[in-house]
Amino acid sequence: MSIITLTTDFGTKDHFVGAIKGTIYSELPNARIVDISHHISPFNITETAYILKNAYKSFPEGSIHIIGVDSELNEENKHIALKLDNHYFICPDNGIISLLASEIKPEKIVEINIHDRISTSFPVLDVFVKVACHISRGGTLEVIGKIIPDYKKLVELQPAISADGKTVQGNIIYVDNYGNSISNINKKLFQEVGKGRDFEVIANKYVFNKINAKYSDIIDFSVPENIRQKDGTRLAIFNSANYLEIAIYRSNLNTVGGACSLLGLNYRDTISIKFC
Amino acid sequence: MSIITLTTDFGTKDHFVGAIKGTIYSELPNARIVDISHHISPFNITETAYILKNAYKSFPEGSIHIIGVDSELNEENKHIALKLDNHYFICPDNGIISLLASEIKPEKIVEINIHDRISTSFPVLDVFVKVACHISRGGTLEVIGKIIPDYKKLVELQPAISADGKTVQGNIIYVDNYGNSISNINKKLFQEVGKGRDFEVIANKYVFNKINAKYSDIIDFSVPENIRQKDGTRLAIFNSANYLEIAIYRSNLNTVGGACSLLGLNYRDTISIKFC
Amino acid sequence: MSIITLTTDFGTKDHFVGAIKGTIYSELPNARIVDISHHISPFNITETAYILKNAYKSFPEGSIHIIGVDSELNEENKHIALKLDNHYFICPDNGIISLLASEIKPEKIVEINIHDRISTSFPVLDVFVKVACHISRGGTLEVIGKIIPDYKKLVELQPAISADGKTVQGNIIYVDNYGNSISNINKKLFQEVGKGRDFEVIANKYVFNKINAKYSDIIDFSVPENIRQKDGTRLAIFNSANYLEIAIYRSNLNTVGGACSLLGLNYRDTISIKFC
Repeated sequence: MSIITLTTDFGTKDHFVGAIKGTIYSELPNARIVDISHHISPFNITETAYILKNAYKSFPEGSIHIIGVDSELNEENKHIALKLDNHYFICPDNGIISLLASEIKPEKIVEINIHDRISTSFPVLDVFVKVACHISRGGTLEVIGKIIPDYKKLVELQPAISADGKTVQGNIIYVDNYGNSISNINKKLFQEVGKGRDFEVIANKYVFNKINAKYSDIIDFSVPENIRQKDGTRLAIFNSANYLEIAIYRSNLNTVGGACSLLGLNYRDTISIKFC
Repeated sequence: MSIITLTTDFGTKDHFVGAIKGTIYSELPNARIVDISHHISPFNITETAYILKNAYKSFPEGSIHIIGVDSELNEENKHIALKLDNHYFICPDNGIISLLASEIKPEKIVEINIHDRISTSFPVLDVFVKVACHISRGGTLEVIGKIIPDYKKLVELQPAISADGKTVQGNIIYVDNYGNSISNINKKLFQEVGKGRDFEVIANKYVFNKINAKYSDIIDFSVPENIRQKDGTRLAIFNSANYLEIAIYRSNLNTVGGACSLLGLNYRDTISIKFC
Repeated sequence: MSIITLTTDFGTKDHFVGAIKGTIYSELPNARIVDISHHISPFNITETAYILKNAYKSFPEGSIHIIGVDSELNEENKHIALKLDNHYFICPDNGIISLLASEIKPEKIVEINIHDRISTSFPVLDVFVKVACHISRGGTLEVIGKIIPDYKKLVELQPAISADGKTVQGNIIYVDNYGNSISNINKKLFQEVGKGRDFEVIANKYVFNKINAKYSDIIDFSVPENIRQKDGTRLAIFNSANYLEIAIYRSNLNTVGGACSLLGLNYRDTISIKFC
């Protein structure tokens, strides 16, 4: 039986997540349910996309991903289910899929139409879970919706390349648990545009001439540990998801602060790379 | 095998929840354990009741709900286990059950008496888990406690109806993940007292003449999206649990604030409905 | 199949934990995965040790514990796997094991050497999970590493006994969910040094002449409940993990504060016991 994952902005204090799991287990006693995140900033689909994009591929093919962010049904926010990259996604048609996987063509998309049978003010529980259980039992998408040709597209926060090919300008799209500021510039784009040229990464008033592969690349292991400068050093790195990230070595967001607060690199702020 | 759920004020940083799950798996290798919430405000049984009331019914009948809030055993705080609404609850006898399900008569209540065999300063781990595993294996309540006629009653924070039937006065009993302020006035009471009359909802200095069924009811979809006023609008709504809630449309408690902070509607504050 | 537990400083918002679980389920469809904690303060191995020490023993023997704190591989931070106390641990060789279980001799330790086959900037996902799945399938440690004689030792933050045996001086090593300040002085040490003598616990400017066994020991149940002083009382207690803890009765760290903030007893602060 397929895994069902949950990605929401519900938090983990309220009853929402418990109620969803109880409902799934009521329908599928042997369900395997995995929380991806419930701490998305409210209604933030850019964050949702970053998190889910970097998590879903680790799951087995056929997994079913419920996205409970900004999911209230209204005339501008339909509910869809789709098969894409051999995974299933159930979500509002609010552009999240275009941020998540714009380069992958879905195999099939349906607009969910079981709402006439369901009166609800909690669609993730009453609609998305029903659809997920249906798919998990081997049901087809056509049974719970009507085929549509495409999903809603959002094109915001994409990196821009200057006409002369000398500059890539991106934005901070996510701040992680350590307060590190993550941009929408990935390693592939950096390599394609840069073609091995020297470069400067410019983030606020800070300039970096190197992008590290590991955080500890900044440490000079030849210097004895007790006199070594390391914690608090700022650095640019391609993180484990291969995005350009500005970090403070071993920062603590809750005490001294992280790159986001110490360097002033918050959600939507710009970051650029100049090639020489 | 029955599902065991956990509702506590332990948080998820400390070792408590991990130790509880390890102990359950040690006794029941195939257990299904679901976290309902571990982020109850410390010792707050009103919050506990609100959360659990809105979650437990989604679980299959026969599920076992461990409540680890204010559970230290002392002469005024006994431990009980009960069967109610075809679910099992294991909790301190501190009034939580009366807040959770005062209208439902328990089928059986026992005062847990296995403590003489157990020396503990962590009763949820050492006592509640043992009782839960016993029930999960099909054991009866009589084996782990002695039958008692009733549980402790608490009658605080109930909505009051004025003698002339013109006013319902309630209180904020919960602030949710979005900062929305939820009252103890439910839709059923509103309809029984109101009988279709016009009304005003008065919350602090704010007045509402309508209670929405959906958050997006406040949006005028005939106005183009780019010039539409919507985020930040305050509204009254019957939430998905059917309680009267004061909300700010798409608020973010961590940045701009939510209804609780922006409108000054915090735990225990009053809210009233005047019918004309 | 063995349980796999996770103890990390990844938080639960980012994609890291979801990706780890997806990878485990991809390798072991019937895995049982338990989160011990993902809210360790970044890079804090003292906290990690306190939490895991008090959780791992509740799990069945043979359980596999992944420790994802400060785990980036570099020349001073190797990766190890070991069998100790009939449990498996997979972690960086940063001293965590010496803080966790210095008194228990490991049965076997290996330095993990599968890295040459794996290029990674997320070793918990790419290396630790692989090792955990290998062990869970019954594989031996020798296959994924080379036997080493010992792990790195850290000796910081150990309680000190004065030469005349009259004083034990310790430190706060953990602040729990309620804001209570927990020291590294355990009941066994207290009894061995104290030998039943009278004593004073001195924490900042506060002195305690009694160490309680239960929080509610401070309540005088003969006084009627409505005129009883209890919330806000400070007390010393051996907590459920048997460590000396300074607590505020029913404190709430998020509102009025806890012992850590109200009494000024934070991580690394000293606490001492004087015997008469």
